[in-house]
Amino acid sequence: MAPVADLKDELDIVIPTIRNLDFLEQWRPFFQPYHLIIVQDGDPSNAIQVPNGFDYELYNRNHVNKVLGPKASCISFKDSACRCFGFLVSKKKYIFTIDDDCFVAKDPSGKEINALAQHIQNLLKPSTPLFFNTLYDPFAEGADFVRGYPFSLREGVSTAISHGLWLNIPDYDAPTQLVKPRERNTSSSRYVDAVMTIPKGTLFPMCGMNLAFDRELIGPAMYFGLMGDGQPIGRYDDMWAGWCAKVICDHLGLGVKTGLPYIWHSKASNPFVNLKKEYKGIYWQEDMIPFFQSIVLPKECKTVQECYIELAKRVKDKLGPVDPYFQKLGDAMVTWIEAWNELNPPPQTAALAHTNGVEKN
Amino acid sequence: MAPVADLKDELDIVIPTIRNLDFLEQWRPFFQPYHLIIVQDGDPSNAIQVPNGFDYELYNRNHVNKVLGPKASCISFKDSACRCFGFLVSKKKYIFTIDDDCFVAKDPSGKEINALAQHIQNLLKPSTPLFFNTLYDPFAEGADFVRGYPFSLREGVSTAISHGLWLNIPDYDAPTQLVKPRERNTSSSRYVDAVMTIPKGTLFPMCGMNLAFDRELIGPAMYFGLMGDGQPIGRYDDMWAGWCAKVICDHLGLGVKTGLPYIWHSKASNPFVNLKKEYKGIYWQEDMIPFFQSIVLPKECKTVQECYIELAKRVKDKLGPVDPYFQKLGDAMVTWIEAWNELNPPPQTAALAHTNGVEKN
Repeated sequence: MAPVADLKDELDIVIPTIRNLDFLEQWRPFFQPYHLIIVQDGDPSNAIQVPNGFDYELYNRNHVNKVLGPKASCISFKDSACRCFGFLVSKKKYIFTIDDDCFVAKDPSGKEINALAQHIQNLLKPSTPLFFNTLYDPFAEGADFVRGYPFSLREGVSTAISHGLWLNIPDYDAPTQLVKPRERNTSSSRYVDAVMTIPKGTLFPMCGMNLAFDRELIGPAMYFGLMGDGQPIGRYDDMWAGWCAKVICDHLGLGVKTGLPYIWHSKASNPFVNLKKEYKGIYWQEDMIPFFQSIVLPKECKTVQECYIELAKRVKDKLGPVDPYFQKLGDAMVTWIEAWNELNPPPQTAALAHTNGVEKN
Repeated sequence: MAPVADLKDELDIVIPTIRNLDFLEQWRPFFQPYHLIIVQDGDPSNAIQVPNGFDYELYNRNHVNKVLGPKASCISFKDSACRCFGFLVSKKKYIFTIDDDCFVAKDPSGKEINALAQHIQNLLKPSTPLFFNTLYDPFAEGADFVRGYPFSLREGVSTAISHGLWLNIPDYDAPTQLVKPRERNTSSSRYVDAVMTIPKGTLFPMCGMNLAFDRELIGPAMYFGLMGDGQPIGRYDDMWAGWCAKVICDHLGLGVKTGLPYIWHSKASNPFVNLKKEYKGIYWQEDMIPFFQSIVLPKECKTVQECYIELAKRVKDKLGPVDPYFQKLGDAMVTWIEAWNELNPPPQTAALAHTNGVEKN
């Protein structure tokens, strides 16, 4: 790993799981130097096995309740949305989060891809959301800005989010899974060797399977919503976080990248189960997208928290009439920010911050 | 070539040149079925040699003057901007334009790339400017829309422009050429296997070297401006056309794609000569980009011509104060539309249209 891609004391790897973490064996050469935050979903009495030699802390639902008290209501249960609890309790500048059915992918030359190193490179180099560069990432080796790219925009902006992609099983919704059960992304046919900035003003579907972000820049917007147990919706946790975060990044002048790195996504989830989880989301997203596309945050919102509280208010006002669920979600967004501020106080009072009930190895 | 990529009676290939067209030999398997429109730049007494077997018409400056009369003033001389004369006199639905120093590129597997077939495929399939698809072109084989992509947006919009890229010599401006004289795009290191839609509201640097468009949808906006002989600026012809066309595509709900196909760009132009041509453009683009970024065309503008006339007015109003050149350019934009309407009358009067003084083979 290149020294620039190190950051081992500044990055936590967050993994939501309901099973043994054998998938870490394959990632050992790349992940072992880093600290893991494991968020155990489902029954807390199940024992999660973590391969030897990893430095980790593990939180189950009992820990979540103990750390957050009544505010634990904002953390989803029986849904990978629970991963955002890991973002909350981390004390690091950067987060990489990955699903436990994601393995090391190979590039077309057969070389194993160090996904984390690529994410770090994406986060450490600027983004270019204000003008499109036709030769993709101008900061990649051997690339640059093309003729006609304004010089005043070539410094770019700080990168808040790096969204990676998937070989093998693509991230399709249930209807597409049903229609194309055998469609696969392979490194020989569908590997796109590019990192790009998603332009300002453009929304994208952010998938949480292979995702990194700068917690200091955008952490409080990385709330994965109310999904799963007791909620009318699932599988929109990462989408929700992505739409909120993109609108806030655009407002604050931060960049969002997508493209490399690929991971190898091993398991297609059951499309019939997914359809049940998704169907309200598929319906509601026709209201959610115009809602997010029309958001203009006021100039007074200067921090991510201020932006997020404003967004919560608008969710209740504008999406509340679509379904009472959005009233609950708006309230949970506020609770999330309260929890964030409690666990992540401003630097001068940071010495007082602590978490409880954590099982450390 | 797949049947879908045929269109041989509906597409003209426009080539601006000052030299013999030996480069066509390499393109013969791909271009020979099509009609060529050759726009000879510079001294009209020079004889341009076209390889045998191609179906073409050739226009030099004398022909341009004869066809357009006083309106010929809008067509640049001694600059590749003259290519837009070919767009004007074509009677086809589609245009592919290519520079005479562009050759057949090979993909990473070593296969020769049929650039024209890829452009045709890009133009015939919809674009998706309203929401970003992280797996790139959802209409490519083996690809689709990812989870979270609104179903109401999956039909996409008609594609007006297909912008192709370059292996070997990248399209850099003079300062970048000077700083990186040896930087090359190779198919092993910099080949990106993707076609993407440039999102609505985002400007891009459109290069005229390897470009296709739907003349019926966007033709009148493909004016390459006043460049070269007698003008204070060069090498911004395609950029200007791209900014105008993108703003109009966004207003009219049309799509613009970039990415595949690659061509092999053989010659780096002289960076010192380029610097002289570009320097006012490099300076002015800091005003031009905010100008185009802030354009909101009125709802009353429903045709490309109406949009373009409105744009010409704003160029004079808003960029005129930057330099008197923009007054002249605004006038030339209006002249161009007059010439376009004269040579391309609405269908009911099309039988009356004719061009004069054309050397046909």
